[in-house]
Amino acid sequence: MPDVVFSVDQSKSMRDQSVPGHNRWHPDIPPAVTIKPGSDIRVECKEWTDGQIGNNDSANDVRDVDLSHAHMLSGPIAVEGAEPGDLLVVDILDLGPVPQAQGPNCGEGWGYSGIFAKINGGGFLTDYFPDAYKAIWDFRGQECTSRHVPGVRYTGITHPGLFGTAPSPDMLARWNAREQALIDTDPDRVPPLALPPLTDGVLGGTADGDLLAKIGQEGARTVPPRENGGNHDIKNFTRGSRVFYPVYVNGGLLSGGDLHFSQGDGEINFCGAIEMGGYIDFHVDLIKGGMETYGITTNPVFMPGRVEPRYSEWLTFIGISVDHRDDTNHYMDATLAYRNACLNAIEYLKKWGYTGEQAYLILGTSPIEGRIGGVVDLPNACCSVFLPTEIFDVDIRPGGQGPQFQDRGQVAVTS
Amino acid sequence: MPDVVFSVDQSKSMRDQSVPGHNRWHPDIPPAVTIKPGSDIRVECKEWTDGQIGNNDSANDVRDVDLSHAHMLSGPIAVEGAEPGDLLVVDILDLGPVPQAQGPNCGEGWGYSGIFAKINGGGFLTDYFPDAYKAIWDFRGQECTSRHVPGVRYTGITHPGLFGTAPSPDMLARWNAREQALIDTDPDRVPPLALPPLTDGVLGGTADGDLLAKIGQEGARTVPPRENGGNHDIKNFTRGSRVFYPVYVNGGLLSGGDLHFSQGDGEINFCGAIEMGGYIDFHVDLIKGGMETYGITTNPVFMPGRVEPRYSEWLTFIGISVDHRDDTNHYMDATLAYRNACLNAIEYLKKWGYTGEQAYLILGTSPIEGRIGGVVDLPNACCSVFLPTEIFDVDIRPGGQGPQFQDRGQVAVTS
Amino acid sequence: MPDVVFSVDQSKSMRDQSVPGHNRWHPDIPPAVTIKPGSDIRVECKEWTDGQIGNNDSANDVRDVDLSHAHMLSGPIAVEGAEPGDLLVVDILDLGPVPQAQGPNCGEGWGYSGIFAKINGGGFLTDYFPDAYKAIWDFRGQECTSRHVPGVRYTGITHPGLFGTAPSPDMLARWNAREQALIDTDPDRVPPLALPPLTDGVLGGTADGDLLAKIGQEGARTVPPRENGGNHDIKNFTRGSRVFYPVYVNGGLLSGGDLHFSQGDGEINFCGAIEMGGYIDFHVDLIKGGMETYGITTNPVFMPGRVEPRYSEWLTFIGISVDHRDDTNHYMDATLAYRNACLNAIEYLKKWGYTGEQAYLILGTSPIEGRIGGVVDLPNACCSVFLPTEIFDVDIRPGGQGPQFQDRGQVAVTS
Amino acid sequence: MPDVVFSVDQSKSMRDQSVPGHNRWHPDIPPAVTIKPGSDIRVECKEWTDGQIGNNDSANDVRDVDLSHAHMLSGPIAVEGAEPGDLLVVDILDLGPVPQAQGPNCGEGWGYSGIFAKINGGGFLTDYFPDAYKAIWDFRGQECTSRHVPGVRYTGITHPGLFGTAPSPDMLARWNAREQALIDTDPDRVPPLALPPLTDGVLGGTADGDLLAKIGQEGARTVPPRENGGNHDIKNFTRGSRVFYPVYVNGGLLSGGDLHFSQGDGEINFCGAIEMGGYIDFHVDLIKGGMETYGITTNPVFMPGRVEPRYSEWLTFIGISVDHRDDTNHYMDATLAYRNACLNAIEYLKKWGYTGEQAYLILGTSPIEGRIGGVVDLPNACCSVFLPTEIFDVDIRPGGQGPQFQDRGQVAVTS
Repeated sequence: MPDVVFSVDQSKSMRDQSVPGHNRWHPDIPPAVTIKPGSDIRVECKEWTDGQIGNNDSANDVRDVDLSHAHMLSGPIAVEGAEPGDLLVVDILDLGPVPQAQGPNCGEGWGYSGIFAKINGGGFLTDYFPDAYKAIWDFRGQECTSRHVPGVRYTGITHPGLFGTAPSPDMLARWNAREQALIDTDPDRVPPLALPPLTDGVLGGTADGDLLAKIGQEGARTVPPRENGGNHDIKNFTRGSRVFYPVYVNGGLLSGGDLHFSQGDGEINFCGAIEMGGYIDFHVDLIKGGMETYGITTNPVFMPGRVEPRYSEWLTFIGISVDHRDDTNHYMDATLAYRNACLNAIEYLKKWGYTGEQAYLILGTSPIEGRIGGVVDLPNACCSVFLPTEIFDVDIRPGGQGPQFQDRGQVAVTS
Repeated sequence: MPDVVFSVDQSKSMRDQSVPGHNRWHPDIPPAVTIKPGSDIRVECKEWTDGQIGNNDSANDVRDVDLSHAHMLSGPIAVEGAEPGDLLVVDILDLGPVPQAQGPNCGEGWGYSGIFAKINGGGFLTDYFPDAYKAIWDFRGQECTSRHVPGVRYTGITHPGLFGTAPSPDMLARWNAREQALIDTDPDRVPPLALPPLTDGVLGGTADGDLLAKIGQEGARTVPPRENGGNHDIKNFTRGSRVFYPVYVNGGLLSGGDLHFSQGDGEINFCGAIEMGGYIDFHVDLIKGGMETYGITTNPVFMPGRVEPRYSEWLTFIGISVDHRDDTNHYMDATLAYRNACLNAIEYLKKWGYTGEQAYLILGTSPIEGRIGGVVDLPNACCSVFLPTEIFDVDIRPGGQGPQFQDRGQVAVTS
Repeated sequence: MPDVVFSVDQSKSMRDQSVPGHNRWHPDIPPAVTIKPGSDIRVECKEWTDGQIGNNDSANDVRDVDLSHAHMLSGPIAVEGAEPGDLLVVDILDLGPVPQAQGPNCGEGWGYSGIFAKINGGGFLTDYFPDAYKAIWDFRGQECTSRHVPGVRYTGITHPGLFGTAPSPDMLARWNAREQALIDTDPDRVPPLALPPLTDGVLGGTADGDLLAKIGQEGARTVPPRENGGNHDIKNFTRGSRVFYPVYVNGGLLSGGDLHFSQGDGEINFCGAIEMGGYIDFHVDLIKGGMETYGITTNPVFMPGRVEPRYSEWLTFIGISVDHRDDTNHYMDATLAYRNACLNAIEYLKKWGYTGEQAYLILGTSPIEGRIGGVVDLPNACCSVFLPTEIFDVDIRPGGQGPQFQDRGQVAVTS
Repeated sequence: MPDVVFSVDQSKSMRDQSVPGHNRWHPDIPPAVTIKPGSDIRVECKEWTDGQIGNNDSANDVRDVDLSHAHMLSGPIAVEGAEPGDLLVVDILDLGPVPQAQGPNCGEGWGYSGIFAKINGGGFLTDYFPDAYKAIWDFRGQECTSRHVPGVRYTGITHPGLFGTAPSPDMLARWNAREQALIDTDPDRVPPLALPPLTDGVLGGTADGDLLAKIGQEGARTVPPRENGGNHDIKNFTRGSRVFYPVYVNGGLLSGGDLHFSQGDGEINFCGAIEMGGYIDFHVDLIKGGMETYGITTNPVFMPGRVEPRYSEWLTFIGISVDHRDDTNHYMDATLAYRNACLNAIEYLKKWGYTGEQAYLILGTSPIEGRIGGVVDLPNACCSVFLPTEIFDVDIRPGGQGPQFQDRGQVAVTS
């Protein structure tokens, strides 16, 4: 087992750990630890909301979640000798929920997925599912099941939703400028177009006083992925993957968390993965000057591992970039096309007795593959969602006597 | 071998076949043949431009292509007893280039891929590659190579780019209305936002006179995918797949073509697949009332086959929905995110000696996977492109001594 | 399409082709053609018994088959410059049944598999199935079905059962000596321990007179695999594979045939694959002195292709090296262990209504994987057979209400 | 995390645990625990030799190992309501080395593989490698490397080598009779043909006195797999697998251990897997009367999981049932054919600088696939070994400039 370089007591807030983590991107957040290139390390992580969601049958906590605390990240980890222009080589050796534990804290044998209310960030289908819902998932080895979504069982492609390096001051300023410019195009939108810096709830590791205030005023929110990596929510950052992160500041300053037991491509219900606290083991190395050498300047590059679950039977739904509610044609909009593919899948699953919310959570949490079909056949982009049929306890493929409708209850709702 | 229900003499234009095909979607195009449910059939297909592109080393023919002729489709095939509301069950038994042939017509041992000029439709990266280019690919069993792109060899996921059923008159009217509305938002755009009906070059099977004129005036262009299927350009419609097509008119009227020897997700260079003439074998069956039974109302659903090539080693590039040229942030734009992922891959491949055009064509033609990463982490969508490293004759992964730059020539250019 | 260097008219015996093939291994069989290294070639092949088996519902032809004619091989193909000690590099570009054909000759849209009678060679389970049986299989693209074995459908891993290079005179003499020594240990055994040279039925390409007599007297029978390759019956010699054959005589003299549409590991019913006539396309190249360079001296080496069908759900049966009929323990006998694994699978399938013969033919023809478990845990070797559950039209896994017994008829029997 | 129903302190012998395990198969060994059907449980396991092998650079401990102590099994676990004729349904939820540990006991971050001396049991190639050797392997997540075998890295298919149910008294008597009959055919053989009951070193759980003496006199040794399961050494009993064990005594009495971090098909060097202590999590259920219902009477049946590592590039070596040392032909001997395939692979790897012992250990420990080729082509069985080329840090495929010989040191040897 590698050395634990960032430890978390899951019963406490990230704010109360011996070395606290952080919830903004800022180059001045003090490193929690410094390691040498070539090290194997373990990083322990809190679940992303810092423990606001409980293992119960009400979605009130999802409805009322305070996003100013999110995401609670572990780090920063400084790497000796890392300088701007280098590549951090990060091997994901292992990761998982809280080891050897069954308990009340998220990641101790269980996780959750939520549909966020439209007034609180929403999700990919928020116009269709504007309210808050929740499902609790129980872990059994590499599989999980949910009392709220009976009849499915997944082998999880476990992965971190969010890891990245610190931005340089210049890069941070650019982020803030371009995101504010976007917000300014429609400042009253619900949900907002982007999230500007926010001093409420800021946590900056061991920073306090003026430095913490500065981090709150300038620090980028952690929701989007950006040039430094960040909240990729790519399910294939799994065991055995190797990631090449660009370095923008001395030491690189690797931080992250937001561990997911399982997630479908797109993480469509926003809090769509099965969220958990836990640990992740890395090997960290350095390619000096690697950004220029390999032309990796804008985003991380990675090589997925070879231990993803292997499914071979799929049912695939297609969507195009037309808003079918009012027959409006959008131009080459892959986002809309993927939304339609997901809606088509949900309509199909309803025929088998799943509620819309259950189907939505299945797409968010199971190892679906979201694929770009055509993005050149003007005006319609085409995307598809590959649903593995082997996750269901009945044969859901078309054919035979038609769908077998069963009452499957419902996910947790708000009171 | 199944009965040939639509035959093509590859040395002739689609217009001069014994039963001509068609190049518009219209419910009144006369069926070329009527088959019974449960039939196995063979459909022969022309390459999509009706033979405008030659096996040579100049891209002039790509530059000068007349798109009013495209796509040249085989069909329509009427299915006895099919009525609106049914599902056509279409098994793709087999498909391939022109059997047992080596010759001058596309599909006779060779195919091509092109980058279209911006003034002629463009492609996914047309702002970066505004001119016309071409590569010729030679087929050897299920693999292909190109004299214009040395150092790569693909096992093709061979598939039809375009199959679909005929729209009802109402559906056709809706298509024309919504696409015209889109065009009207920017009527002078180059390339255009959508393609309205066009009488020039129209072919309507055996229709002539007033009927042909009507088809020209009303018929939907074949470029986009729509509710009837159409130009999906989904590489996984391969051998062994089963597709469920909605039926909108009596007989269903299945038509298609645009066969591809190989293509990457997105078909990013528009004419990005390796295009070919050839044949496709179907088993066709019917689920009466299947659209309502299964909730399949808006788009086809399919089950991919299990004979896709198996790659296990990938290099994955990520993009986010920021235009990095001027640091403009777009909201949840998966199209832009995927474009950036592709551009990142191209920059990387340049380090190994591929020209930008060669790299662009590799992404268009090789079995890359285009994946939706996150589409909820506002404001940045995140997409990724998985490049199979085993298609290259050198190890292109980062590491070791750095990239080995080699001069690899260039694709075919215009004169 | 590559040049046809060995052509077969499927309506005629191999003896009556313009250039006949051969059915013995001998260095003096005259080359049918000479090719240059680097060539792409097509070789057409007869089904292995030279057309003795018909598309009908009687197994009499299997019972009465004359094995002195088998295997009917295409070739020899001489490669310019090949000398003893070289490696022939043979890429399998493509292969399949008779192209574009539906007819009475095996490979024209259909193939067969047979259980051979114990008195005529038998098979792996001949003590349990001593009589002759047959099933006819219909090809539909890469899938096949049988009227004699309802309820299964396979995606075939199509491959040649038999290809190899010519032995040197010395090697041939050694083969004959060691096989005769084996026969001499039990000369009256039924089936025999090995097959010595046989002048009856010999075919030696264009050889006649004294040379043909010599080939008959000395030529090795084609049944076993040997140092030169030969009758491997390894299902993974499929499209995209690259095989390295040792060269023992000048020119190498590559010959083969015995094409299989599908086969399980072990080809357990002897004529267990789905046999067919057809074609195979090769690229042939040479590594001078490659045997010493790579230490490949005793058997070919190969790299399987990446277009094998992809199954992910299996039911696995285990066997150990005990003869359970009389509780006799054999020492580390993997053959017996695999036989027991197969018998266990057959007992299981009987519970679903398959006859023993149907189950036997399923194991012989479907893409089962036969795996070595432990071969060190004295005294019991352990082997297992992986049966892909997705080939069945019902869910055959244990669980639920127990097996659903259905009457599924029977394979073709003798009169 | 499931309840621990059998706990192990890795620093102590299995004999000194709070509830000791056992090292013989006997129906009278007292259950260590009784569980209800439907339970999730954790079983902790010692490494199979009870800690005789150390993390050092000498193979003396392998040479001197006392096999009377092996295998040290955890259990028996009685299942309420299980009766002869039932099937135990055992889901492997998870397994691994000692959690969260790095230390001197095997499984605490490391494991070993050994070549046993011919005078001490030997291995599959003991005639070729008669002496004792050892390699130590370090675990990093799901991958492992060895200082004794540089240049390879595996993603382990982690699995238990040995689990099974207790034999009935009758079955035990039959085992002893048939194995003694085998021994009697060559009682002085080295290594012996089988291992009879042995009172030395016997451990029978909590049994002592007369009962322990009886267990020693009658108890079957744990080396071979038998009808109850036992030492299968099948690498695919991995996470997510479901095993159906026959029940022969009341309670079923499930026992096992011999955990392997990684192993190739055949476990060819006997102690060929990477051995470790650790834990395994099961879900246990019952199918009443399942043996008759499903025809599962002789051996367990299982369904492998879908989280095995995914390799797609292989180099495959073939062997036939001829002893090439003296050109002796054996009849349909798959064991010999597989031995030759392994020897061919070793000769090949030597060209790249691996010693024979290193190559032997690579085949024993890496996820090679051992396949039955043909077992009907008399007289020569044909087996093949699929070696995943992606485990090597250089490209080991034939081609290019020929093999790149490097000095790679040697495994641990005896003094």
